Amino acid sequence: MKNFLSVHDVADINALVKKALAYKASPFSEKALGQNKRIGCLFLNPSMRTRLSTQIAAQNLGMEAIVFNIGSEGWALEFEDGAIMNGTTVEHVKDAAPIMGNYFDILAIRTFPSLKDREEDYSEKYIRQFVKYAGIPVVSLESATLHPLQSLTDVITIQEAIGNQQSAIGNAKPKIVLTWAPHVKPLPQCVANSFAQWINAWGEADFLITHPEGYDLAEEFTRGATITHNQDEALENADFIYVKNWSSYQQYGQILSTDQSWMLTSEKLKLTNNAKVMHCLPVRRNVELSDEILDGTNSIITKEASNRVWAAQAVLSEILQSI
Amino acid sequence: MKNFLSVHDVADINALVKKALAYKASPFSEKALGQNKRIGCLFLNPSMRTRLSTQIAAQNLGMEAIVFNIGSEGWALEFEDGAIMNGTTVEHVKDAAPIMGNYFDILAIRTFPSLKDREEDYSEKYIRQFVKYAGIPVVSLESATLHPLQSLTDVITIQEAIGNQQSAIGNAKPKIVLTWAPHVKPLPQCVANSFAQWINAWGEADFLITHPEGYDLAEEFTRGATITHNQDEALENADFIYVKNWSSYQQYGQILSTDQSWMLTSEKLKLTNNAKVMHCLPVRRNVELSDEILDGTNSIITKEASNRVWAAQAVLSEILQSI
Amino acid sequence: MKNFLSVHDVADINALVKKALAYKASPFSEKALGQNKRIGCLFLNPSMRTRLSTQIAAQNLGMEAIVFNIGSEGWALEFEDGAIMNGTTVEHVKDAAPIMGNYFDILAIRTFPSLKDREEDYSEKYIRQFVKYAGIPVVSLESATLHPLQSLTDVITIQEAIGNQQSAIGNAKPKIVLTWAPHVKPLPQCVANSFAQWINAWGEADFLITHPEGYDLAEEFTRGATITHNQDEALENADFIYVKNWSSYQQYGQILSTDQSWMLTSEKLKLTNNAKVMHCLPVRRNVELSDEILDGTNSIITKEASNRVWAAQAVLSEILQSI
Repeated sequence: MKNFLSVHDVADINALVKKALAYKASPFSEKALGQNKRIGCLFLNPSMRTRLSTQIAAQNLGMEAIVFNIGSEGWALEFEDGAIMNGTTVEHVKDAAPIMGNYFDILAIRTFPSLKDREEDYSEKYIRQFVKYAGIPVVSLESATLHPLQSLTDVITIQEAIGNQQSAIGNAKPKIVLTWAPHVKPLPQCVANSFAQWINAWGEADFLITHPEGYDLAEEFTRGATITHNQDEALENADFIYVKNWSSYQQYGQILSTDQSWMLTSEKLKLTNNAKVMHCLPVRRNVELSDEILDGTNSIITKEASNRVWAAQAVLSEILQSI
Repeated sequence: MKNFLSVHDVADINALVKKALAYKASPFSEKALGQNKRIGCLFLNPSMRTRLSTQIAAQNLGMEAIVFNIGSEGWALEFEDGAIMNGTTVEHVKDAAPIMGNYFDILAIRTFPSLKDREEDYSEKYIRQFVKYAGIPVVSLESATLHPLQSLTDVITIQEAIGNQQSAIGNAKPKIVLTWAPHVKPLPQCVANSFAQWINAWGEADFLITHPEGYDLAEEFTRGATITHNQDEALENADFIYVKNWSSYQQYGQILSTDQSWMLTSEKLKLTNNAKVMHCLPVRRNVELSDEILDGTNSIITKEASNRVWAAQAVLSEILQSI
Repeated sequence: MKNFLSVHDVADINALVKKALAYKASPFSEKALGQNKRIGCLFLNPSMRTRLSTQIAAQNLGMEAIVFNIGSEGWALEFEDGAIMNGTTVEHVKDAAPIMGNYFDILAIRTFPSLKDREEDYSEKYIRQFVKYAGIPVVSLESATLHPLQSLTDVITIQEAIGNQQSAIGNAKPKIVLTWAPHVKPLPQCVANSFAQWINAWGEADFLITHPEGYDLAEEFTRGATITHNQDEALENADFIYVKNWSSYQQYGQILSTDQSWMLTSEKLKLTNNAKVMHCLPVRRNVELSDEILDGTNSIITKEASNRVWAAQAVLSEILQSI
């Protein structure tokens, strides 16, 4: 694996999931692999799970991880080609990235979208410039439009749950529903885009997406899924429900609905096949998801977040083996 | 040891002090103990000594330490049960703590009091929720009402000094005085509460507390100590003077006095048995303590702060042995 | 080597350069040297290259590096002797530094000038107090007036380039020109002072400094160099051009010129002996240096920044051997 920016960088999803679960069973089995290798974790935005799990994954492989909060500990970066830098940005990515490329063996980066300029966000301008100028493998810790480490974790968690409840699902494909949920702030489409992209690429599920009108995700990610505005219909007989808010893609970055009836409740769970509930976290309790769901037995959200370590470890391992 | 939140978690204070002094003599003697173990150090508030000494202690034991400034690097946490999270908090401790519990083997947390709601602060709501939801040992790096790593350090430092000046004290118990000092800001009662709790539990001192009227600490911590508003009387023949400001417990969080006559001076030291002077740091020079004391030969404050490493190392060692 | 604050701490520049290049060829050759040794990296100001390269250098030598952003993660420091600390500073360097000295084996510090009080800045009050009170070796990560790790890197990079293009320069000394460049903010004189100090001490170059009127650097650093206000004349036949902005030393901290004709261009490069272009970074593109230069083949700026690791590693190695 050269970079890890989206599902397109993965040759075999199931093999990667298997590798991750092997690390979960035996975290330190390959501590020599990363000997004298170093990962730089660059944060242009806040992060908890991604920040911690990536450091832990690197350490499990014997790598050294150095974290750098580029905005607060360093300088504001410029990404415009040809910019006359007489404003607030202090350093151009063209100058910073090649140096990172010399300091580290792998570069991991978190960089959120502006949610103001769709074309710019969807060009993945920021992370693509790091790839272009760093000259070493780049791992997305969530970029403007995707969050592949989260999605890999999600597939791992679904696979684990299926293994544990095979009898419930039987030999059929599990039914997975991605449902929009309300939120108080305009959020990126990353997690939803990425989940759709991965579940479609994985191909081992009956996959539905449900959301209010105006919340259609970009077709490049959803193609292959059934899309409906009728949440109840979507939830029927679902085995997994992935709950997530996102702001509108069409009316870019806007909040079009705060309709609380879209919040998943225990009542709605009754429509499902005793579905497992997932969320990437952080979650706004009693806005996106009710306490009863989060604290109930159907939630596999803590497991999901804990699997972040093994997803990251599998990805870093693949990259280490290629350098 | 399961958690380290107060003196109540310690089975044998003297044994723990002895262990700390053994590490001081030989810091790397148990570097295999923490092999493949990981401590997460969560800071909801600033920290220097605690931050650095805990990382060092962990490394001395061969552990990996990961520091996370949760407010600035991650998300603001919610601690209210049942909250409808449509405000500024982004993640509930109920969701964050279990994940920390899966990522780490030990969780260390600093969380200051609000100084606004005494009942809430004294319920130790924040750190107790981490204990409740993390499911792994939790070490207090200073909580709303206590600072046990500081107090353990203080007992270690007193024990060391007694060893070094046995002749001066003789066979009698040392006289230890905790004296209030002025400050420009309302400070927590943590260090004073905790010092009182530990010295009382230790039981090997003649222990007095002196402060202006209105500054009585909670009785649960001071019970066993002699309390007086007459500083001069308290200082008479003292062997150790612990200087510390705290805001009022009764008129909760308020500054009732800025009386500079409470600042310890060389003149006042003459009342004592050439007492050693202690302070937890940071100290406001010439407000809490004069330059002449801080720069004089009676101060053992640097030693005290340096012993923070060995206190933390002894505690982490005890916990590692129990997991 | 006891401290690393300026070129005066270096017994033999060429030997240190040679050591750095040996580490570049074999980064992990002395990983046992720093075993159980610890460096504390204190940042009172932002940093990217220095922050990352120092951590990497320490790890390459087997040391543990602990980073501490003292202002944001800890407390604001007081540096005035005798201060009555009833304002915004929380801890005196006299109290903090000795503890750092006990926690670490080496202390590395970044502390910028105020650019308001020249006498204070040029007394190097901040870093000198750390040296005075810490009691362990101190490494400057850039202080009020100097940036020795940058300058060592610069000499390493020049030496490397000379090795690679010996035929071009022949047996003569290379001509090195330090040229002022415009900038939008008042910058410290550190990098320019330090570069001048090192090139003069190195003695193996024909060294010129060129800048607009009013931008003369302190003579203690420039003595030995030819100084001219005619940039074109200075650039003639130059082998290396070091581009850097600084604010005025005479009219302390002020911007006296924003004359864009001082920005190096490809046109000006024609005056030189196909000179290599250097800059310490971060650089304001198209203000200090044009895109055409930065993206062109004459720039050795990425190499220069990458050499920061080997400079730091050589310095830490020298210090480790002396403790």
